[in-house]
Amino acid sequence: MLDSLFKPRAVAIVGASTKELSIGNVIIRNLQKYGYKGKIYPLNPSAPEVCGIKAYKTLEEIPDQVDLAHVIIPSKFVPQTIEDCGKKGIKAVIINSAGFSELGEEGARLQEDFLRRGKEFGVRVFGPNCQGIINSDPELKAYCNFTFTYPDPGYVSVVALSGGVGALIMQALADLGVGQRLYASNGNACDISIPEIVRYYGEDEGTKAVILYTEGFSNPGEFLEAAREVTAKKPILAMKAGRTEQGAKAASSHTGSLAGVDIATELIFEKTGILSFTDEGEMARAAMAFATQPIPKGNHVGIITNTGGPAVIATDVLVSCGLEVPKLGEKTIEKLKESQLPEAALENPIDVVATAGGSQFRGALDVLLDEDGVDSIFINFVTAPFTDTHEVARQIVEVNRLAKKPIVCNFMTDLSQGRFQITRDILKQGGVPIYANPSDAAKALGALVKYGSLKRRDIGLPETFTDVDAAKARSIIEQARQEGRSVLSATDVYTIFDAYGIPVARWRVVANAAEAVAAAEAIGYPVVVKVDCEEIDHKSDMGGVAVNLKDAAAVNAAVDDMESRLGSFGKLRYFVQKFLPGGRELIIGATAERGLGHLVMFGLGGIYVEVLKDVSFKIAPVTRVEAGEMLSSIKTAALLDGVRGEKGIDRGAVINLIQRVSQLLNDLPMIQEMDMNPVMAFEKGVYAVDGRIRI
Amino acid sequence: MLDSLFKPRAVAIVGASTKELSIGNVIIRNLQKYGYKGKIYPLNPSAPEVCGIKAYKTLEEIPDQVDLAHVIIPSKFVPQTIEDCGKKGIKAVIINSAGFSELGEEGARLQEDFLRRGKEFGVRVFGPNCQGIINSDPELKAYCNFTFTYPDPGYVSVVALSGGVGALIMQALADLGVGQRLYASNGNACDISIPEIVRYYGEDEGTKAVILYTEGFSNPGEFLEAAREVTAKKPILAMKAGRTEQGAKAASSHTGSLAGVDIATELIFEKTGILSFTDEGEMARAAMAFATQPIPKGNHVGIITNTGGPAVIATDVLVSCGLEVPKLGEKTIEKLKESQLPEAALENPIDVVATAGGSQFRGALDVLLDEDGVDSIFINFVTAPFTDTHEVARQIVEVNRLAKKPIVCNFMTDLSQGRFQITRDILKQGGVPIYANPSDAAKALGALVKYGSLKRRDIGLPETFTDVDAAKARSIIEQARQEGRSVLSATDVYTIFDAYGIPVARWRVVANAAEAVAAAEAIGYPVVVKVDCEEIDHKSDMGGVAVNLKDAAAVNAAVDDMESRLGSFGKLRYFVQKFLPGGRELIIGATAERGLGHLVMFGLGGIYVEVLKDVSFKIAPVTRVEAGEMLSSIKTAALLDGVRGEKGIDRGAVINLIQRVSQLLNDLPMIQEMDMNPVMAFEKGVYAVDGRIRI
Repeated sequence: MLDSLFKPRAVAIVGASTKELSIGNVIIRNLQKYGYKGKIYPLNPSAPEVCGIKAYKTLEEIPDQVDLAHVIIPSKFVPQTIEDCGKKGIKAVIINSAGFSELGEEGARLQEDFLRRGKEFGVRVFGPNCQGIINSDPELKAYCNFTFTYPDPGYVSVVALSGGVGALIMQALADLGVGQRLYASNGNACDISIPEIVRYYGEDEGTKAVILYTEGFSNPGEFLEAAREVTAKKPILAMKAGRTEQGAKAASSHTGSLAGVDIATELIFEKTGILSFTDEGEMARAAMAFATQPIPKGNHVGIITNTGGPAVIATDVLVSCGLEVPKLGEKTIEKLKESQLPEAALENPIDVVATAGGSQFRGALDVLLDEDGVDSIFINFVTAPFTDTHEVARQIVEVNRLAKKPIVCNFMTDLSQGRFQITRDILKQGGVPIYANPSDAAKALGALVKYGSLKRRDIGLPETFTDVDAAKARSIIEQARQEGRSVLSATDVYTIFDAYGIPVARWRVVANAAEAVAAAEAIGYPVVVKVDCEEIDHKSDMGGVAVNLKDAAAVNAAVDDMESRLGSFGKLRYFVQKFLPGGRELIIGATAERGLGHLVMFGLGGIYVEVLKDVSFKIAPVTRVEAGEMLSSIKTAALLDGVRGEKGIDRGAVINLIQRVSQLLNDLPMIQEMDMNPVMAFEKGVYAVDGRIRI
Repeated sequence: MLDSLFKPRAVAIVGASTKELSIGNVIIRNLQKYGYKGKIYPLNPSAPEVCGIKAYKTLEEIPDQVDLAHVIIPSKFVPQTIEDCGKKGIKAVIINSAGFSELGEEGARLQEDFLRRGKEFGVRVFGPNCQGIINSDPELKAYCNFTFTYPDPGYVSVVALSGGVGALIMQALADLGVGQRLYASNGNACDISIPEIVRYYGEDEGTKAVILYTEGFSNPGEFLEAAREVTAKKPILAMKAGRTEQGAKAASSHTGSLAGVDIATELIFEKTGILSFTDEGEMARAAMAFATQPIPKGNHVGIITNTGGPAVIATDVLVSCGLEVPKLGEKTIEKLKESQLPEAALENPIDVVATAGGSQFRGALDVLLDEDGVDSIFINFVTAPFTDTHEVARQIVEVNRLAKKPIVCNFMTDLSQGRFQITRDILKQGGVPIYANPSDAAKALGALVKYGSLKRRDIGLPETFTDVDAAKARSIIEQARQEGRSVLSATDVYTIFDAYGIPVARWRVVANAAEAVAAAEAIGYPVVVKVDCEEIDHKSDMGGVAVNLKDAAAVNAAVDDMESRLGSFGKLRYFVQKFLPGGRELIIGATAERGLGHLVMFGLGGIYVEVLKDVSFKIAPVTRVEAGEMLSSIKTAALLDGVRGEKGIDRGAVINLIQRVSQLLNDLPMIQEMDMNPVMAFEKGVYAVDGRIRI
């Protein structure tokens, strides 16, 4: 429970200062300015009062119970202060001071020290090296923070790793007139974590939507769990910065490095239904729509405009966001005629023209409310100086109050003119989300619609295949581990695949040419022969792979050749496998992500992965729905259906294979990396042809 | 010369009205409010005065010379009024009234009528169905427009097809505090065109940058010429709406429809060095930077920040915009140490930390000004309440005044607080472009950098190959035209290719199997045989193509088979050509664009064009540099260099071929469509294997 942090009835400021340009002074003035309803106890070694409030020399002296303490003192004194806080019964501490783990070893030792004492004395730590929290509840008004934006009460709560971005978002919301509920920026986050705060926001009844800024998670698994819990109750809008490092990582063609840490965060957002943004302004503007509007039931939008060009821009952006702008039915158009001016264009967008007044806007709105094929309403409203703009605003507000369908409004005006300010205030007070240009408004509606589809999306539960032999697979890996082998042999890999029902082309491992020929005869020609030796990593480049061998002579020759060139690496074995020409090459892989389990990758093999980097990822366990999404989300997905007269591939078999891989990874978390490259896919059936597992 | 329009010394308002909510009233009040220095002559059939100004019944009555008239009367009276204007010596008319070509035939007739009379009586027409113009020149202050934003004087001029978007951009610039020079929105644009206005802005010394909004051009060639002229003198920032239709068009796999009208506009922007935007807000914010900052010499940026997270976001966006954030040299870091606080991070971004004051900011700025490896400076400046923010602003302004390198500033603050308003005003008055969040600021800098690279880019002049036989090609096309053939025969096509030095695989056209065999023997096996008959369009689907024929028997069999199945189409001929296996399939094509010449297309053939739609376009004539850009701008460009041990293709030969195609199109403008699909490209050499020309 973080109530002591977010709902403190009394706050002590350890390190209160009489100097105006100091954090220990700004925090007290912020509490005062914001109208904090609790008690403030400044601590200062010499001053009798700070900011007009009686100051104390020690925590002990404070006559009352204290819930929360700010700590703004040199880092070396912090551990003792935490202990003192515990002794005073203080349950939560915000350490604003810097000088801990971010500064190297000595700081890290201090951090460990205060954490240990915090645990011993029952004190939860927020920070260090952080801003603090805000609770806008009119009954409390706790501004335990040194920043400068004073948010109005509202329903949006913000949590940001970076104080700078947190402040930025808070300011952007304030500028848009969006009320806020809770705010937290926890810097080093050594104890109270972002997942914990997100969970608290999830439980907070006053919070209707959560905004999150992060640069990655120290414990992604913990966040995934928290996010799953909270997104079931309310929307989370999130932004992850540090995207370009990910870009650099994704540029590499190796499976392992195709899946960077940064992909993981986006994948968590996707898996848990968090709405992801790459622009902080866009996120704040979307929050304005979330704060007042219902979630659209579908992606069909009706557009009302009193000006042409902005409707073209809006259409462009809405369509780019995945919305559809459906044609209106004949009946709808007939009904529109009753209210519209003769020069109005009765299509979608409905151009009510610049001279339209309140009754034209209202008529168009009513028609779109009744139209079943429309899920949301987009309005372009330019305050034409020759119309009664207040009346137009009042009509929009009346319809908005019905809350039947979400409405966003691009409101084009000059706010330096009083009469248009009034029009703006009518819309604002009526809860209409208004934007200064069509692209911004359209993107906000796009976010609502996208969230609607995330809410409706059901990825299902992971399937459990019962025809697997988990014990056998586990024992193979245990054996390898005991023998100190991190890369499994071909025999090991294919035996594990067999144990999980992963279809592979028929294979055998043999020791020499004669055995290879016998194996090939048993398997049936043509075959592939590959050298099987841990020491040889890039078999193909080393000449350790011979494909499409059609008879005994060819097999003999291939093995002799490898023996003579590669024998120096040690005792060679040979992997003989059915050669399967003519299928579509796929690649399926997995990597372990610290604290998160595995990321599973799917793509088309060959140049598609090497040159186009065209792959998709999911976090294991991968459900049937998610596996299907992996196939359809690559850019070259059309190739899976067959082109130029080729047959399409067996999607069902691939989806099945991905799910079996997912179960294998779930059962064998010690797997660090796994590659099936290629997987050969045919019209019927799919076969892992080359496999690699690293533990 | 559009001086009568943009610099009127006297304006008549035909259709002046005493009704406040009417255009004929709003325009007069706008002129008054904005402080128009010229004379205003309202025309009204009954009122003795309008808005306190003496009104006239007819133009004749006006005692003085009039330069410009607004016409706000029912459309049917407009032609006579234009004639009256001419008689009065009025050189320019803004027709605000609607009811012309946009309303169908009758309106179009009226439009033709007034255009004819305009020409006869020397009156240039602006509109109809339009807003008007604004000239902010303090000596004139002409607000000949019915919209509501009153821009401050400045250096940015705006031209917009749509009045709504024009007003939007004007308002966005005003909100950002960006001064404006000229404004024009010309609606139906039946006489004075956007190219003409752009040219006028180009010649206007007070205009330092042009902003353009369009939804396409009625005469793209005229615009291309005007844009080429103006971009040589000053930057044009432009936005084209209606992008999603283009998306739909580009989805079709046929060459012809891959090149839609909308691609053409973007290609004109590219060819003439216009900076293209897809977001109107982003364009206005970029204009703020263009209004005050020099153009960066390169793409290396130095970042100064007093807060962590926003610098991460800025880095993401800057890198996405193509900028580099270089490491600082050791000497630079040493020099930084002299001015920075001990806890500052002396990397790039330079984190001066939240407690940094003016001297820390100044120290960092000076170092970046001196650093050769840095072309521009990005500042994150959050107004930490415990610093002297005014002093920080003053230092930034002092450095900005040096104008040595472009500076943009993400200025994070709460403007509802007076002291931060002062800080803002210091920056604003000092000409520092400031933005409310890091993404917006970074995109504005990105636009400056992109413009710098457009300015430095030299596409060169089209080459002229002298070894071509234009007359021969022209006579073939003339012959086809006389015979009423729009699709040329294979012989025609290959003869034209030969005439332009476009390399083709050896070929002959024959009449029967025996001749086919003889041709094949002469060419050398293997060969391809294709039926050559205008009636058969999709030869391949019809079984009219046989590839890789290795001997006489195969050629015989192929021809016999085609004869028996396709003979019913008429007298068949056969096209026999050397079969060239093993190359990389390319596709090169062209389509005629109304009023613009030809668009030339390049792509990889087969699935790359069919499934991935991975093609690039240029407007002919295509220079060597542009042809090179066509090759490198497709997404699968890496395949041209060879992958997986394959050899790369002969880029020089492909570039040469594209230029020869360009010259052919230039010489033969009657060509409507041309396809070479495939062109086979090898390590050495390139051959058009299948060609099609439609006239």
